Amino acid sequence: MAVIGASNNMVKWGFNILNVLVTKGGRQVYAVNKNEPEVQGLTAYATVADVPGPVEVAVITVPYLDVPAAIEDCVRKGVKVAVIISGGLAETGGEGASIEKQAVEIARRGGVRLVGPNCMGHFDTSSNIFTVPYLPPVQKGCLAFITQSGNASQSVVAQASEVGLGFSKYVSSGNEADLHLEDYIEYLAQDDNTRVIIGYVEGIRNGRRFLEVARETTKSKPIVIVKAGRTEGGARAAQSHTASLAGSDLICDAAFRQCGVIRVDETAELVDVAQVLLGQPLPRGRRVGVLSTGGGAAVMAADALMKHGLELPALSLTTMERLNSMLPRRWSHNNPVENGGEPFDYESLWTLQEDENIDATVAIGAAAADMNYASWVPLPASLAGAVDEWMDASADREIGGVEKARGLMEKHQRPLVMANMGLPMAKKGRVWQKLAQHHLVPYLTVERAARALGHLVEYSEYLGVAKGSR
Amino acid sequence: MAVIGASNNMVKWGFNILNVLVTKGGRQVYAVNKNEPEVQGLTAYATVADVPGPVEVAVITVPYLDVPAAIEDCVRKGVKVAVIISGGLAETGGEGASIEKQAVEIARRGGVRLVGPNCMGHFDTSSNIFTVPYLPPVQKGCLAFITQSGNASQSVVAQASEVGLGFSKYVSSGNEADLHLEDYIEYLAQDDNTRVIIGYVEGIRNGRRFLEVARETTKSKPIVIVKAGRTEGGARAAQSHTASLAGSDLICDAAFRQCGVIRVDETAELVDVAQVLLGQPLPRGRRVGVLSTGGGAAVMAADALMKHGLELPALSLTTMERLNSMLPRRWSHNNPVENGGEPFDYESLWTLQEDENIDATVAIGAAAADMNYASWVPLPASLAGAVDEWMDASADREIGGVEKARGLMEKHQRPLVMANMGLPMAKKGRVWQKLAQHHLVPYLTVERAARALGHLVEYSEYLGVAKGSR
Repeated sequence: MAVIGASNNMVKWGFNILNVLVTKGGRQVYAVNKNEPEVQGLTAYATVADVPGPVEVAVITVPYLDVPAAIEDCVRKGVKVAVIISGGLAETGGEGASIEKQAVEIARRGGVRLVGPNCMGHFDTSSNIFTVPYLPPVQKGCLAFITQSGNASQSVVAQASEVGLGFSKYVSSGNEADLHLEDYIEYLAQDDNTRVIIGYVEGIRNGRRFLEVARETTKSKPIVIVKAGRTEGGARAAQSHTASLAGSDLICDAAFRQCGVIRVDETAELVDVAQVLLGQPLPRGRRVGVLSTGGGAAVMAADALMKHGLELPALSLTTMERLNSMLPRRWSHNNPVENGGEPFDYESLWTLQEDENIDATVAIGAAAADMNYASWVPLPASLAGAVDEWMDASADREIGGVEKARGLMEKHQRPLVMANMGLPMAKKGRVWQKLAQHHLVPYLTVERAARALGHLVEYSEYLGVAKGSR
Repeated sequence: MAVIGASNNMVKWGFNILNVLVTKGGRQVYAVNKNEPEVQGLTAYATVADVPGPVEVAVITVPYLDVPAAIEDCVRKGVKVAVIISGGLAETGGEGASIEKQAVEIARRGGVRLVGPNCMGHFDTSSNIFTVPYLPPVQKGCLAFITQSGNASQSVVAQASEVGLGFSKYVSSGNEADLHLEDYIEYLAQDDNTRVIIGYVEGIRNGRRFLEVARETTKSKPIVIVKAGRTEGGARAAQSHTASLAGSDLICDAAFRQCGVIRVDETAELVDVAQVLLGQPLPRGRRVGVLSTGGGAAVMAADALMKHGLELPALSLTTMERLNSMLPRRWSHNNPVENGGEPFDYESLWTLQEDENIDATVAIGAAAADMNYASWVPLPASLAGAVDEWMDASADREIGGVEKARGLMEKHQRPLVMANMGLPMAKKGRVWQKLAQHHLVPYLTVERAARALGHLVEYSEYLGVAKGSR
């Protein structure tokens, strides 16, 4: 590998990319800089063609005017892929656009494929290659991420890590001068390490091919996309960001629906939906049972579920009888099941999961044993031991409860989505770890839980697993 | 003060309320328990009437059947206010409803006012009284919070603390058997410690009075309410939660608009909107200028602003010229101003703030100096000092930048709303502290920033400060 434009200046891309390649890769890495003899302790070569060993991937960070020459050098060297970080090209129109065109022609003639330009790099956790320096640390996992904005991807990656989701591959595709969104999807469809594909998209270069590739892919691997540039102002901004023609938003909506792509509204939703796709069976319908430890959350959950087209059926008589026998008299006697302000109760959850009237369960208030109540009110020191013991016993109970709930979820093929608005106040304790292991980490609002479940149901209906009710 | 139902069992309300009163209050507190001679080291009295000293406020946590007798005792003792935590009353219908009615009659005859029942208590930071045990720690501030759900309020209080907002008063109003939402608003309208009132509401007991009180209050003090129970499922859940009749959602919408109440969709939005209300001048119109360090964020911001009815005008010629002279050639040359991937740039921000074509500015990417980049890629140890120095200098520059930006915001009476999707990855460093001091903490998504600003503009139009453009 080589970095063309490798730098000794720590605020430059050429510094940080070389650093990340050297630190994470364990591969032979060459520095290319036409002015410096040495970069970060490595010999620097004037052009990539001067590098002694073979170079498969070159990362280009030189100023926009120098990009075509750098690609020429890549052709001479026999580089397979050039990742062009440099901006100031097609997204600026005029001169930049014609230089980008020139670079693509050189690459095509010379058999070099291009990622970018105007991008942030890529990574592949199975081969441990990272050309992208500006991302928080990631775990290995089965989420693949294609993004037309490097910047917007940072928070998505952080959010995924926050709920314990790992990545297979990531590419910041930038202006997509050569390789397009649809090429990456086609590749990821074949990739055994990838189970779910998420994308931040401003424009689609080849709509027909996208439709074909996406339709084929979503049969076995879900695709979740946030499509920005919906409004006239957003579309104008997209044009000057990644030279994208955003196109009509209604057509885009219809196209996504036709090929089974799950369209979400904001980047935070990408991870929300990926989590249910990775952790849940496909539901057979829209009927949802809700269990909540708090009345307010129950009301908001009911509103959110109905807003997202889901249904709150009456509970079966068996369920009502069982709940009457285990809950205090003041329970809500209805769906949502509000347990009257008691701690989260797994017996009720299992009961709901067994109800033949429902296709999925939303459970609000789990992982309470991870809450740091002791920081809320200073308890008498004499009680510290008793509190710890009580929390510990609660955690044991919860972990057992989660295991059984997961079993029921799989037995009946009914999703179980959790929410806990108090979770930001909790430590990531043993219960959280157990939930994360099963991709069951509670959403931070009932709205997000309902929205994610709504998308899961839609996808299930698209695949014909759920029978649509509207 | 007295706790009727004070307990030695640490998982009971009666334990934790007594504990919080003793720990935080510095007041004379009496324990009342008809079976125990001593609770948490205090003498316990059989009834509140047996307490030797005067009792102004009694907190009642006894089982629902014992509530009327406890109120009788309060009347005998001359208690002014009883905060009834106990549930199982009107929200369960039938017997519970008639017991609640009985309790209210006793209280009315005897001159005792009631908070609750089926509530979580209250606090007042100026007198340092906390009857609510189950809330994260709060700071003193000028936000007042009325909530018909105790449970739903926990995350709101935590979120406010997270962005440095403090509270004046809090009341979990529960079933509102005696004191209603509108009574609390009327009181808070007069309270000098309160500048903004937020509320979680399922039902309004006296619609006409609410309208009158709210109309008067919002002339000088904004009210922000999330009204749950919008859907048929939510309304049913509200009925069994706080015995609320949710009423028609359309009528509610129209009523709120008529009296200038800002209606938001989810609890997270309460704090989002409170932050702009506390930190920002009222804008004179809907025209927004955007500055972003990333193209994706710029596109999403444009979409979000337009979605919330705001406008993205062309920038003035002066602004264009100034930006051309200070930004790299590849900047977006448009509104949103995307600076071409450079660090957040205060010169551009000030320039935008001075543009006569805009009424408010959205700035994306500030507080970058607080980011913990060093944790992303292990830098060579030899650079650690240089990185620290660079981050420190950046922080100094940012702090100066924020001060000037704030000055311009006040000079021109144009709001400045910040967003930074990377903020969860940042430490709360010096820049964050400075921003928090001015209620300028960046929102975690551009969507939330746009939504909050949209509400501020609506309120400004309601008050006649902004001239509505639709």
